[in-house]
Amino acid sequence: MNTWAELTNMCMITNGAKVLVQDRHADNWRGIAFPGGHVEPGESITESVIREIREETGLTIESPRLCGFKDWMKDDGSRYIIFYYRADKFSGGLKASEEGEVFWAELSELPGMNLAVDMELTLKVLLNEKLSEFYYEKVDGRGERHLL
Amino acid sequence: MNTWAELTNMCMITNGAKVLVQDRHADNWRGIAFPGGHVEPGESITESVIREIREETGLTIESPRLCGFKDWMKDDGSRYIIFYYRADKFSGGLKASEEGEVFWAELSELPGMNLAVDMELTLKVLLNEKLSEFYYEKVDGRGERHLL
Repeated sequence: MNTWAELTNMCMITNGAKVLVQDRHADNWRGIAFPGGHVEPGESITESVIREIREETGLTIESPRLCGFKDWMKDDGSRYIIFYYRADKFSGGLKASEEGEVFWAELSELPGMNLAVDMELTLKVLLNEKLSEFYYEKVDGRGERHLL
Repeated sequence: MNTWAELTNMCMITNGAKVLVQDRHADNWRGIAFPGGHVEPGESITESVIREIREETGLTIESPRLCGFKDWMKDDGSRYIIFYYRADKFSGGLKASEEGEVFWAELSELPGMNLAVDMELTLKVLLNEKLSEFYYEKVDGRGERHLL
């Protein structure tokens, strides 16, 4: 049973008490988020997050670790999945991309920043070992958010 | 960018030093494995593993936790993904399904059992917190297995 799916990744890179954030310019999802992007055919999902982080931040992360995922059903019946990773080892120098500026911020200060939609709940899944999934469901036209 | 994907789940249920195994009858993947099945449209992936475990074992698991995944590209260009979960809380009585008998086995005895293909590597991902992905790649017609 095949279904259409859009497979993407996102990574929280930590450096002591700081995390690397991206100030996204894109119209469809604007604000402070963690960098990431699409999985390409033929690459492992772990390879895809290493490649995206290099393209969007200039950093090469080592041994990213899966911390959960976000998913939802789109109106066309396909599923969108964001694989959430964390990494605390990296090399290289910081470099922005056209996706947005990248900079280090105190993790504790994130809640007061201009976060992109749903980043507060994304943070909960990334930081809580007991949470695996952020499932977004449309019920009677309204969004319901489940942390599982 | 959408791609075809087949989304499935598998769960290692633990009870002290024992794990619940399924002796699969199916021709395509036969032997000792953990129970699981397909994700249905509109359900969260966590809900899907709870449903599949209930259908295949009679048990209702509580708070299953993501431990990684296995994925590969099929010849038709689609990706197959198995989301790996662990659960140590459950209720209900054990009941087999047409997929195969289910019974408790010592985790330490699994390596000596008639395991289904690639279950040894699946176990490594489930048991090692530093591993997130078991990526199976075809290179020049031969399978290469990557633990990431």
